[in-house]
Amino acid sequence: LAVTPKIEVSEQVRVRGDTRSELIAATSALMIEHDSVDISLSEIAGRARSNVALVRYYFGNKDGLLIALLERDVRGAIEALERLIATEASALSKMQHHVSGLLRTYHRHPYLNRLVRSVIRDSPPERAKKLAQDLVGPICKFYEALIDQGVSEGSFRKVDPMLMYFSAVGACDQLFSARGVLKALFDVDEVDDDLRRRFIDHTVALLTQGVIAPGTIPSSRI
Amino acid sequence: LAVTPKIEVSEQVRVRGDTRSELIAATSALMIEHDSVDISLSEIAGRARSNVALVRYYFGNKDGLLIALLERDVRGAIEALERLIATEASALSKMQHHVSGLLRTYHRHPYLNRLVRSVIRDSPPERAKKLAQDLVGPICKFYEALIDQGVSEGSFRKVDPMLMYFSAVGACDQLFSARGVLKALFDVDEVDDDLRRRFIDHTVALLTQGVIAPGTIPSSRI
Repeated sequence: LAVTPKIEVSEQVRVRGDTRSELIAATSALMIEHDSVDISLSEIAGRARSNVALVRYYFGNKDGLLIALLERDVRGAIEALERLIATEASALSKMQHHVSGLLRTYHRHPYLNRLVRSVIRDSPPERAKKLAQDLVGPICKFYEALIDQGVSEGSFRKVDPMLMYFSAVGACDQLFSARGVLKALFDVDEVDDDLRRRFIDHTVALLTQGVIAPGTIPSSRI
Repeated sequence: LAVTPKIEVSEQVRVRGDTRSELIAATSALMIEHDSVDISLSEIAGRARSNVALVRYYFGNKDGLLIALLERDVRGAIEALERLIATEASALSKMQHHVSGLLRTYHRHPYLNRLVRSVIRDSPPERAKKLAQDLVGPICKFYEALIDQGVSEGSFRKVDPMLMYFSAVGACDQLFSARGVLKALFDVDEVDDDLRRRFIDHTVALLTQGVIAPGTIPSSRI
């Protein structure tokens, strides 16, 4: 009698945990497949072999599910940023590592930037502010610290961190947000490892060279 | 008897022309207001004081209306690109003018890049290809010619034109695609003339300096 409930509880926890993660994973997979962040709850529930009532149970509503997906996707990236800014590396080297990391994040989660934008846009003002601070704030703080460091090291021009945030995110995101254009115009079906590698090299060089102070020579590879 | 039909035809043409343009203008205005390219036909028809049947009459379907809007918005930009590439200016100067022009286009039509992507994504393959060639092809051809010219002048690094297209469009578009983030995180309500001017200076400097060959010094202002 003592054993049976234990197993039941443990299985229930496992199943619950799985269902929650599976709903998040299904949302992510469908956004990649449809190249869109507009996916219906019923499609998500169907893909996860679950139902809409369980979405409400775990996440409250669709918004809660989308935010849980965002938190899953950005958590590692934010932690990596915080570690990177605290290292002893030069601003140029930090910039190169950051751009490379951002591109790898978008390659894994090509919907990420569009989802951040649409969730913030569709939230009431106070909630939008909190979400923006949690999801986008860390990368903006990173640019502030990075540009300060680079300017004081003499390797960066004095660039506006807010404008740099929009430039860098846009330059990194577009290849992953425009899969239809990539296919229709360049006949490229997917961003494979070779294209990803070339795009990382290209973007790291473009953005790093774009911010350096006159006379600074960036190392050619990270 | 000869006079009356003349007036009727002329009025009919005027009214038809107006309704068609008004439907396009209403679509554009609603996309700016909602910061989204997902607008329903009934909302568009309501804003234009028209009806859904007239949308079908003038454009066949919603897709036809969206493509007419895209054609309206990009026509001038494509003509300007074709004039620019044919001038005697240096590649660096062409790059600066082009980036500045692209930013002005996105400032006027902040939904433009998102609409191009979604219309191409949602079209069947053959139609998507044709649309991509018409709407995006000219800017890609511009980059090919520009980079060739810059490399042969010795002022540009050898940059991949396809990758440069994605970088430049993304870097220019993001500020105008992320109005919610701009408001929630930076408390900026709109891209006013001052911010637009600063973003143009910033982006022209970033992208131009990003592609130049070692030792080249770009002129600081266009």
